[in-house]
Amino acid sequence: MSEPKLPTVNKNVSKDGRLDIQNPHLTDMDEDVLYHIALSNKTHDLKDMFGDVKFVCFGGSPNRMRAFAEYLVPELKIKIPAGQTLCNIAHGSDRYVLYKVGPVISVSHGMGIPSLSIIFHEIVKLVHHAGCRDVVFFRLGTSGGLGLEPGSVVITDEAVDGLLRPYMDLVILGKVVQHSSQLDPGLQQELLSLANLQKDNYQTLVGKTMCTLDFYEGQARLDGAFCDYTQKDKMAFLNQAYNHGIRNIEMESLCFAAYCHRAGIRGAVICVTLLDRLKGDQITTPHSVMEQWQTRPQKLVVAYIKQKLGIQ
Amino acid sequence: MSEPKLPTVNKNVSKDGRLDIQNPHLTDMDEDVLYHIALSNKTHDLKDMFGDVKFVCFGGSPNRMRAFAEYLVPELKIKIPAGQTLCNIAHGSDRYVLYKVGPVISVSHGMGIPSLSIIFHEIVKLVHHAGCRDVVFFRLGTSGGLGLEPGSVVITDEAVDGLLRPYMDLVILGKVVQHSSQLDPGLQQELLSLANLQKDNYQTLVGKTMCTLDFYEGQARLDGAFCDYTQKDKMAFLNQAYNHGIRNIEMESLCFAAYCHRAGIRGAVICVTLLDRLKGDQITTPHSVMEQWQTRPQKLVVAYIKQKLGIQ
Repeated sequence: MSEPKLPTVNKNVSKDGRLDIQNPHLTDMDEDVLYHIALSNKTHDLKDMFGDVKFVCFGGSPNRMRAFAEYLVPELKIKIPAGQTLCNIAHGSDRYVLYKVGPVISVSHGMGIPSLSIIFHEIVKLVHHAGCRDVVFFRLGTSGGLGLEPGSVVITDEAVDGLLRPYMDLVILGKVVQHSSQLDPGLQQELLSLANLQKDNYQTLVGKTMCTLDFYEGQARLDGAFCDYTQKDKMAFLNQAYNHGIRNIEMESLCFAAYCHRAGIRGAVICVTLLDRLKGDQITTPHSVMEQWQTRPQKLVVAYIKQKLGIQ
Repeated sequence: MSEPKLPTVNKNVSKDGRLDIQNPHLTDMDEDVLYHIALSNKTHDLKDMFGDVKFVCFGGSPNRMRAFAEYLVPELKIKIPAGQTLCNIAHGSDRYVLYKVGPVISVSHGMGIPSLSIIFHEIVKLVHHAGCRDVVFFRLGTSGGLGLEPGSVVITDEAVDGLLRPYMDLVILGKVVQHSSQLDPGLQQELLSLANLQKDNYQTLVGKTMCTLDFYEGQARLDGAFCDYTQKDKMAFLNQAYNHGIRNIEMESLCFAAYCHRAGIRGAVICVTLLDRLKGDQITTPHSVMEQWQTRPQKLVVAYIKQKLGIQ
């Protein structure tokens, strides 16, 4: 397998491609327990286990991230010896699942920013302890679309919060700190070019993504347990978002983008849309169709990975 | 099984104990798909399945909530016929697990406010569609303690956010709305009295709970992937929180409390503390000890349920 050549873009990445971790306290610690994935740099040889990782793929659902790992095996021409199988490396915890297939980690992040935040911290520390170089992060997700045919794929160019602001508020030591949620434009264009090559029967586009702290009221749905607004209020807000350039709505991109930016990691968010929120709230598409749609971001990321690894 | 007698305390509960749902749009909908637990009021007879529910117990970890359901079976003297077993009612989705044991639902909520928010909306709608009466909600969780022996149990009297404010900010249609996170004092005292009767070898107390959007920086940890502050800054903040009356820190209580208050549901948050954050950041207690500690909130809630059901 040839060494992938990935340009580094951020001052936070050191010259040899290793992550410069943004926490001086870590070097003073005897042991670092990655609690939510049940690993530690003392009880596990993280360099040996993960040193060759080049791509980390995050997604909300544990089943989907296992399926993605299984999909990677033939695509990356990985040979698993007879009598062996993929396993969930984080099996000591039931908070997330974590698979490794060649140079790719497939990890679940649960739902919402706080759940993503925890696993992002622990994966960055894992990548750091393992001494990985030039790692690229992807979030492969599902979302509600705005003005798009359901099943369309959105590559996020900017993540905004529920107030349409392109940064993330973090509350640290009783103060609000803001971090830019800018993502890597070069990576977006690389992905879009690959999508255009694939001649799919669905649309893949670059657009803004709104990231909310709630699925119901936060996304202007009328079908939650609480709702104090009208259909007209809802449509006014969704149209405002559309006019702002927002093409889909989900619950993790803001944190993913802000943390990638802080860590100096090239990252991309690729989400399929399960419905058009300008037309409704409820997700009623048959399960089997949605299952198929959910492989679309995976297919694009696999094409990218194969290109970088020189696999035909 | 005798009918539990639960006082109703909130104007939002109708006279017959049924929930007055706070969303006028729901009544106009042909079908309500509870997407993240793969149920619907059209494809499932929710009244038949859940009409007798009196207690809903939420907790972060799916395994822990399955274990809680299993623990309930003998405690509530439920007879499961030969050839049958408990099953995850939400098995059509991998986002949450949901068990039912007699009048008790045991459901996982994942990590963080957004993840809890989704399942809370869907459970309130389920309780509404099922016509349940006088339902009480509990969150049974884990947390970091402040100035407490690890393994202590905290019953939350007030949930505050990372800025120590006793309300929850919700972003709805591009505006910030605030909801009180007041919990039911009577229920806290009932639980505390029951704990005092149990003569446990650990402390159970009532105190404030700080609820954060992040496990690392949000909780003043020094061991995340990012950290811009010193040990001294951290201790100053944690001591400030302690002096404010905060006895534990977790990631869901604020939303749980605010939504219970909005919905007119009696609710309580009971969390065990896994470490004393005034002494450290990393969770290094052996897994088997933590497993045992995590049953402590369960034991208290089971005592409450048995008292209400008149089970010795």
